[in-house]
Amino acid sequence: MELGQVPLLFSRLPMFPFFDLAHYMASVMALKEQRAVEVSIRSPVACWFSAMLCCFGGSVLSSLMLGEPPVAFLAKTTNILLASSVWYLVFYCPQDKFYQCFAFLPLRLLVAGMKEVTRTWKIVAGVAHADSHFEDAWLVMVAVGWARGAGSGLISNFEQLVRGVWKPETNELLKMSYPVKVTLIGAVLFTLQHSQYLPIARHNLMFVYTIFLVVSKVTMMLTRSTASPFAPIEAALSHMFFGLQKPPSKVKGESASSSNGSSVCDQSSSEQPRDGVKKRQAKKTE
Amino acid sequence: MELGQVPLLFSRLPMFPFFDLAHYMASVMALKEQRAVEVSIRSPVACWFSAMLCCFGGSVLSSLMLGEPPVAFLAKTTNILLASSVWYLVFYCPQDKFYQCFAFLPLRLLVAGMKEVTRTWKIVAGVAHADSHFEDAWLVMVAVGWARGAGSGLISNFEQLVRGVWKPETNELLKMSYPVKVTLIGAVLFTLQHSQYLPIARHNLMFVYTIFLVVSKVTMMLTRSTASPFAPIEAALSHMFFGLQKPPSKVKGESASSSNGSSVCDQSSSEQPRDGVKKRQAKKTE
Amino acid sequence: MELGQVPLLFSRLPMFPFFDLAHYMASVMALKEQRAVEVSIRSPVACWFSAMLCCFGGSVLSSLMLGEPPVAFLAKTTNILLASSVWYLVFYCPQDKFYQCFAFLPLRLLVAGMKEVTRTWKIVAGVAHADSHFEDAWLVMVAVGWARGAGSGLISNFEQLVRGVWKPETNELLKMSYPVKVTLIGAVLFTLQHSQYLPIARHNLMFVYTIFLVVSKVTMMLTRSTASPFAPIEAALSHMFFGLQKPPSKVKGESASSSNGSSVCDQSSSEQPRDGVKKRQAKKTE
Repeated sequence: MELGQVPLLFSRLPMFPFFDLAHYMASVMALKEQRAVEVSIRSPVACWFSAMLCCFGGSVLSSLMLGEPPVAFLAKTTNILLASSVWYLVFYCPQDKFYQCFAFLPLRLLVAGMKEVTRTWKIVAGVAHADSHFEDAWLVMVAVGWARGAGSGLISNFEQLVRGVWKPETNELLKMSYPVKVTLIGAVLFTLQHSQYLPIARHNLMFVYTIFLVVSKVTMMLTRSTASPFAPIEAALSHMFFGLQKPPSKVKGESASSSNGSSVCDQSSSEQPRDGVKKRQAKKTE
Repeated sequence: MELGQVPLLFSRLPMFPFFDLAHYMASVMALKEQRAVEVSIRSPVACWFSAMLCCFGGSVLSSLMLGEPPVAFLAKTTNILLASSVWYLVFYCPQDKFYQCFAFLPLRLLVAGMKEVTRTWKIVAGVAHADSHFEDAWLVMVAVGWARGAGSGLISNFEQLVRGVWKPETNELLKMSYPVKVTLIGAVLFTLQHSQYLPIARHNLMFVYTIFLVVSKVTMMLTRSTASPFAPIEAALSHMFFGLQKPPSKVKGESASSSNGSSVCDQSSSEQPRDGVKKRQAKKTE
Repeated sequence: MELGQVPLLFSRLPMFPFFDLAHYMASVMALKEQRAVEVSIRSPVACWFSAMLCCFGGSVLSSLMLGEPPVAFLAKTTNILLASSVWYLVFYCPQDKFYQCFAFLPLRLLVAGMKEVTRTWKIVAGVAHADSHFEDAWLVMVAVGWARGAGSGLISNFEQLVRGVWKPETNELLKMSYPVKVTLIGAVLFTLQHSQYLPIARHNLMFVYTIFLVVSKVTMMLTRSTASPFAPIEAALSHMFFGLQKPPSKVKGESASSSNGSSVCDQSSSEQPRDGVKKRQAKKTE
């Protein structure tokens, strides 16, 4: 096997079952870290529905946008059973063993890295699916690719509503988290590639973009940073196009504090350091 | 006519117009008892729209879930006219005669019993409709059957929003009311029957389930109880699967107080006893 | 050319690009006047999305109602680019020159008048589109025509949510603004005409209705009044059908104060007089 074939073989990697499993794991664990433990005690049904929205939010949102049945994801029985098992083990495993096991940093890094791989696949599928509905409508392709890849973040207000939490003062459009931002950039890149404006083969772009996703995610988890690597570029663009000047210190502080509240499902392991809080929450379930 | 033929003949009972009428009556009267009198004075349009969501909520929700036009219910002009007449008479009849007449207990029991019959028919229709969209997707069948049978309860947060009321801290998934629970069980049973896992003919299941619905509803109204007959089974299951232990006294208290607030449309006559409140509200309209 | 041909020629007037442009201008300027300046600084993405909902809200809502892809409006790339340019110039033009220029009363009247012309076209398109989905369902025709013509007003609660504002205590059904009311009347008239109950040719009705819209809008802007010309008829009908008696003075006061808050997108220039406020807001952007 030559080195040049690696991207092609990589692009043929099946997502089911291992990468999908990692995605469900990362999503459900992020949900648990957002004070969802109370809900899991109060109402297992609401907790399950919330977990499904975290795992399949992208599918639900992109179906809604294209006028297709948003319950279609329920027809994939195997995936639902997989995600439900993960949900059950994360929330109700005796003595919280399952959660504590996967909260161990190396495993956590593996799961988070594999989750990011699924993001690329979802964006590509979303862009292709949108193109099959609307010919050459590049804005629709970007929107559907974005929705498919970062759906659970974008619908976080309504996912929270299922759990009885309502935070209208913020949403992922008002204050984008890093995963939502990088998915938007990915959706734009894959749309350009699909429309043949980017002189690069799709499997190469998939390979490069996935590497970037995984590396940036792992770096952010290891350095415990929530600052976006795009911050300087964003500040420059904001200044150029919108005449905005943000004091960078304030921006950092805000994003760090808001990352707790606004979007649950798509921030997975950025909250990883605060072990004390988590252990206390975990205790409650026992 | 033999006795064995009763379930078959029962399953051919047409819902239109009398049973549908009872459903509209019970739904609109339940709406009126939820402080909707103010809204009926402030804005008849919002009140009418809210009443239509109570009457046709199941149809709207299941259409949304299957990617079909949610306004389809407006095409059934006769049903809309019937529901609108009921709405008009309940809210704006001079001296509130119409409401007071049907608030009389025997009539109220009759209406509530007939409303429960329509629930069975809706679940069966929902399950069959979902099956025609997705082959053998039993989760979709359960979801659509549930949505069709208990739709107005499940969308109660948004129905309240039409009237300017917003209670994000609770919803029918966080704290299921009895009608929503029993509809979920019915949706599971009819899905199993439809997939031929239950060794029982459909008309027999319909007959037995409807009898159970009507008897439990009438019993709950006569004993003025809001406690679910499933409470012991639920507690056992919660304990077995989720390790949860709820103090039963607290559960009762909560469900009694929350039944006032959370779901309007689907609780019909469980509020029946508090006549004093209703009379005071009724006075306001005059 | 004879005088009798004027309505026919008028009904063939193309909306694109000038009338559409006026619609975008009026919608985005109304958005800016609703304290959206803060949002434009905080998050250009949320501001853009909010502006698109104001410009294309009718299309989004009517698509949702008919089970069609609500992102279809994104496929009309030219219209999106036009609306985005208007959005950019209104919010981010250096020294706010663009906004100040079009806030000049005669220009503002022209823009508002042209926007009202697009309303007629949208209602007609909505009624015809609904008829192609459901045969002879006049309630669906009214609903879709209304949604298409006044969509941005009807979804204002959700448009506000994008900007982090949540006002559940009011909505356009609870307290209809004048544009939403007049659009409803228009939808009823065009549905009657479409079902051939009104003995008038469509182009004549379009002509008369548009004249009425433009004249009433311009009059309201010049007299700085927010009182609906239908107020006496409404009061009479309310009294006759619903037994309601509203003290007219109170109604005026309420509608004046609520017009600030509830519906942003569809009230365009009724806020025009309060120049002081606007100048202060405009200063903030600089």
